[in-house]
Order: sequence, then structure tokens, then C-alpha cells
Amino acid sequence: MFQLIENGSVTSVQGFKAAGIFCGIKKRKKDLALIFSEEACTVAGTFTLNKVKAAPLIISQNVIKLGKKAKAVLVNSGNANACTGETGYDDALKMQRWCAEKLNILPAEVLISSTGVIGQKLPVEKIESGLNEIIPQLSTDGGLEAAEAIMTTDTKIKSLAVKINLKKGEISIGGIAKGSGMIMPNMATMLGFISTDASVEKNLLQETLREAVNSSFNKISVDGETSTNDMVVLMANGLSGISIDKDSEDYLEFLSALKFITTEMAKSIVSDGEGATKLVTINVKGAKTKDDADLVGKSIANSSLVKTAIHGADANWGRILSAAGQSGADFDPANVSISFNNLPILLPNYTLTLDEELASAILSQKEFEINIDLGSGKQETTWWTCDLTEEYVKINADYRT
Amino acid sequence: MFQLIENGSVTSVQGFKAAGIFCGIKKRKKDLALIFSEEACTVAGTFTLNKVKAAPLIISQNVIKLGKKAKAVLVNSGNANACTGETGYDDALKMQRWCAEKLNILPAEVLISSTGVIGQKLPVEKIESGLNEIIPQLSTDGGLEAAEAIMTTDTKIKSLAVKINLKKGEISIGGIAKGSGMIMPNMATMLGFISTDASVEKNLLQETLREAVNSSFNKISVDGETSTNDMVVLMANGLSGISIDKDSEDYLEFLSALKFITTEMAKSIVSDGEGATKLVTINVKGAKTKDDADLVGKSIANSSLVKTAIHGADANWGRILSAAGQSGADFDPANVSISFNNLPILLPNYTLTLDEELASAILSQKEFEINIDLGSGKQETTWWTCDLTEEYVKINADYRT
Repeated sequence: MFQLIENGSVTSVQGFKAAGIFCGIKKRKKDLALIFSEEACTVAGTFTLNKVKAAPLIISQNVIKLGKKAKAVLVNSGNANACTGETGYDDALKMQRWCAEKLNILPAEVLISSTGVIGQKLPVEKIESGLNEIIPQLSTDGGLEAAEAIMTTDTKIKSLAVKINLKKGEISIGGIAKGSGMIMPNMATMLGFISTDASVEKNLLQETLREAVNSSFNKISVDGETSTNDMVVLMANGLSGISIDKDSEDYLEFLSALKFITTEMAKSIVSDGEGATKLVTINVKGAKTKDDADLVGKSIANSSLVKTAIHGADANWGRILSAAGQSGADFDPANVSISFNNLPILLPNYTLTLDEELASAILSQKEFEINIDLGSGKQETTWWTCDLTEEYVKINADYRT
Repeated sequence: MFQLIENGSVTSVQGFKAAGIFCGIKKRKKDLALIFSEEACTVAGTFTLNKVKAAPLIISQNVIKLGKKAKAVLVNSGNANACTGETGYDDALKMQRWCAEKLNILPAEVLISSTGVIGQKLPVEKIESGLNEIIPQLSTDGGLEAAEAIMTTDTKIKSLAVKINLKKGEISIGGIAKGSGMIMPNMATMLGFISTDASVEKNLLQETLREAVNSSFNKISVDGETSTNDMVVLMANGLSGISIDKDSEDYLEFLSALKFITTEMAKSIVSDGEGATKLVTINVKGAKTKDDADLVGKSIANSSLVKTAIHGADANWGRILSAAGQSGADFDPANVSISFNNLPILLPNYTLTLDEELASAILSQKEFEINIDLGSGKQETTWWTCDLTEEYVKINADYRT
């Protein structure tokens, strides 16, 4: 069992310090975050599948691939350092090297990440001077400031932590994330940085993170766009002295707490989606295969027609069924049933039980569930999406004009 | 070579009559169209790939599969007769049978099609009485009225015809189409009905239509949604006495004229897309494979970020590159160049030549081209899309409220 820690963040975990400051990349708001663990951490990471990858992402990916332990994560917002060619790669290396020098650790122990405008040169000298300022501010309660400094168009800080009581003792997991919709002038980027004091072997840590990310960050859609800078990093410093082994009960506790952290973060990204006013959970059941369940969940989560209908609180079940139908999943439409929360809308054989008023009342809420049972098998999954609003269009059409 | 016929339509082709009337399915506007050829026609058709298929579509698909010749196409708008189960299938069969009886032909010679609201019972008795009214009105200049009667949220009639001068003589191709965005309360549906007086063997007719549809209707996106009712039908009555054989010069003339017809129809659907204010041609070059070219074209055409930037006349090339990067196509981002019309924006190695003012002037036009060269091969393709506007959200969120 695990308990939520009040005002939790990456620094709710012993041994982790953090800070967030303004260094001059944005106009006014905080734009530089540093997370630091004196104890070297085993690190796992998942990265964007976009063919266009930002320089800092490639560098962080290498740190993890090389199997090195890491001690720091340096993140700037306001500039993604993406599509910036060799200059951008060089700037990212500088960012990593300067951070290492000033912390007196190795460059290979520093992960770096950037988020913001793409295609513009990173003002890397501002990060150099910013480092002189941020390092003295590192503190064991700086997690929320770091969470603030990685925000771009986010309207809310995304941060939480849990304590897990195992027979051997107590461990913690904490995390901060960002992601909302678009970044000036660019794309939906999501970042997540998670800390734990458990001791976990590298391959197991990677496998666990992958599983948690697959059931959370990889099941959300604000607008179907994959960023050039997406990354989620999990750092384990082992300071609790408790080691988590595969095939143990503790592992299941650890995994379930990590999934809770990543799922809450993922949901907070969707509900803070640009222009979004509603958070919708899409439960897919009765699919022949896991892939089919995902195809259907993803297609509904990405459908502009479903998302505009949700915005208008219009119980437009035909759009949901059609989105499922165009997903590529194998099922017989006549077997499908649909409900909103516990209210049945459509039963098999196209039997309509829709009560427009009750349905619209549910869709008017800020959070609700769309349940679709394909009636074709036993596989299931859950996705999350938000509504598509005029505000979304406005934000993204008029951002630079 | 071919020439456009003024005010052309399906009835610009000898032997084809048509009419369009109001029969009571919609509130006021025309909602029933009939196309008729005394001479039996070889027929080819392409149909939606959505797993959820409307009853009339299945019936028309069967007519074509059975290899029968056809004489009539009966289309109603205002109700899609989709997701209506066995009752819906029965209604569609009635629609086909009544039409055949009243025209004194066989049911298997009648194609039927419906478009509009899904999940509601078709008021088929209105079609029965409508048939009594529409058959006497069939005329050789009724094509435009039929085009009007198949409209749903379309704001413009979509109709055209061409004459082709072959060495053997003259043949014609004419067509009407509909499609705009969504249909109350449902999805983007597109229909196309094309007539010709050429004589074309059935398999060749199907192959030719498939090729023309693949390079036109299958390369447009208003909102990435595939309807339950989409169909394009090509009817050849042979009255010109001119037969088109594969591997002849005439075939290439015929194919090129047919492609012109379907491409113009496809573009008119995009530029009449719901809420759309701009028609954008996306030319993809330098792809390794044809599939890669399509993946990139489709991803850009479907990207909410690209489409909102276009709406705001924001020269946001990073969104275009990122959409290409997330498409699944294989290419090196450093080799990519992008231009708007003839204005270079991005050259290889992330060399930016963007002049914001000139670029924004192009994106402010009603029609322009986005050209992306992946620099990775020799394959190319063209897609069409429109901008994503607040109006699109409004129309689809508030339609039934």
C-alpha cells in the first residue's frame, strides 16, 4: 500500500535536491530547473518516437544507454533546442559539461532536457550564468520550484509523491512533469522526472518504467501530436537501503505506486491540455487482442469529432462507434455496447437506450468515463483525452501573431 | 486532351438523366436524388474502409461485386441509415426494390446510398412517395439538381464534366459529389457519382476508378475521420460507341480525364470543409518509398498543429517537420527542405531561410502549396487539406444543442 505525500515532488525522496530559477530564456517566468542527487542513481528513461529528435534528448538517451549512473538533470524551458543542427548539438553538450563542472561531477552523470520553441538557437550562455545561480539554491524542498521552471503553456504545476510501506521498510517515489498542448511556436511536449530512494537494478528499473509509461503517458492524447523532446526519466539513488527484486511482492507494490505516479501525471497533463475543459477516461473492453484495444482507445481519444461532441456535451455515440470502426481493430459493430459512467447508451444489436438528458448531464461534468465494450474478446485498456475547444484553435492559430 | 463542359454534371454525358427533389427527410431542403441510364451500365465502385458500414453501402457493394450491370443510383440525404441494424438493412432493401419497380428495372440494377444522421431509423415511406414524384422529373439536365439533393452540410454544389477528344471520336465523363465535414449529428461523409459514355470492361473500369480515387479522394483530409457511408461510383453506359482498352493511348487520356474529375471533386470537398477558409496543397518529394511519401503527406494533412498554424497564417515550419517526423516514414530530418509556394523556408542541415513577412503573406492566401522534400529518395505524392478553425469546433460541438 502507498500513501500520497502532501505537496509531494521529486525532493520528497531522501537524497534529492532541486531548484528552479529564471535565467533569461523566457521573458519573465522561471525557465531553468536542476535536480541533483549526491548519491549516484541508476537511471531509466523513455523517449519520443518522433524521427525528429532534439539534441538534448539524444544526449540524455546516450547517458542511459551507456549504463552510467547519473546524479543530475538540468532542464530549461522556453527553447527546445530542436531542429538546430550541429550548433544545437554543440550547445547541448556545453549545457551538460558546464553543469558537470560546476557540480564537480562527470558530464556523463548529467542528463539534460529542453522544452519550448523549436528551430531557434538556444541562448546557452544564459544557462551558463544561470548555473552559477541555481546550484547554491539546490534544496530538499525545491521540487515544486523545479516543477514550475519546466512549465511552458501549462497552467498548473504537475508534481506528486508517495510513500510505500514494505515489510523491509519505507521507500518513496516522487515526480514532476510538464505538458499541456503546444509550446510557442510549437508542439505538445511532455517531460517527466521521477525520483526514488529504492535500490533497483538498471534493467529492472528500465522495464518497470517502460511498463508504467505504457499504461499512462502512452495512453493520453491532447491532439495526437508527438513532440521532438518528450522524455520521462526515473532516477533511483538507493538511499533507503531497500532493494527491489523482480518476482517479489515488493516489486508489485513498487510497480503499482510508480504506475499511480505516472498515471496521475498523465491525467494532469490531459486535463491541463490546451483549451481543455474536460478530462475523459476511455475504457475499452471486449477486444480480441491488446493491440485492438489500444487501436480503439487511441482512435476515440484522437477523434476531432468525438472531442468536439464532448465539448458540446452532445451524446453523439455514433461518432464513438465510427471512431472505433476506423481504428483498424477487428470487431463486429453489432456486438458493441457503449455507456457513459454507469448510464447505458447503446446495447448490442444497435439497441439504443440513450436518454439524451441524462447523457448530456454526464457529459457536462468536468470528469467522466466513456466505456466501450467491443463484445469480441477479453482484452481491455484505458486511455485519457480532453475536449477540443475553440480556445485550442485560438491558442494555436494566433500564438505568434 | 479534354475540355471542361460549362455547368457540367452527370447528365452532361449522353444517356444519363437525373433529378433532385425534397421528399420530407430533411426539414426543407432537397433530400432525394436519382440518376438513371436507360442503357445498362458497367459499374465500378470504391467504398469506405470503416468497419462500421451503413446498410445501403453494403447493398451497393454487392451489386458491384456480383458483376451485374446497373441503371440507377438512388440517394437520400438527411439520414445515413447507418448503425440501424436489421431494420435498417430491410429499409435499404425496400428503397432498392421500390426504385426498381417504379423504374421497371431489376433491383440488382439499382445502387442506393444514404447520407446524414446515423443511428436513426430511415423514414423509408417518404422515399416511396418521393419516388413517385422524382421519376417523372428525370431529365437530361437534372444533374445539378441531383447534386443539390445529395448535399448535407455542404455550402456549395460539387459537380463537373469534361469532353475528351480521342482519335475514334468524343467521349464524356461527368460527376457530382458531396462532402464537407460532419453531418448532424455525425461524421464527415463523402459521396461521388460519376458517369461516362465510354465503353469500358468491368475490371478495367474498377482498376481505373481505384487509381483515380487513390490519387484524389484518398489524399484529402478535413479532420482525419472515415465515414460509415463513403462511396464513389463510376457508371459507363457505352453510348459513345467508343471502347477504351488497356495499354492504349486512349486509356491514358481517359484515366487522366477521370483523375481530373475526381481530383477537382476532392479539392472542392476540402475547400468546403466545415469551418475551412483555406485550401492547402501538400507536395511531398524525395521519399524513399511511395508509402513513406503518403505517410508524410497524411500526417501533415491531419496535424491539428499544422492546420491551426495555417489558420493563423503562422509560418510554423517546425510543426510541419515534426508532423513528418511522427509519421513513421524513414528519412533523415537534417536532409529536409520546406517551401511555401516558391518561397524557400528551410534548406538541408536546418538552414533557415524563413522570411516571416513573405511567408505569412503566402499563408494568408485562400490557396497555396506547402512543399516538403525529404531528401531521401525519389518518390513523391500530393495531399490536400484545409485549416482548422474555431468555426469547425463550434459547428461540431453545438450542432444538436
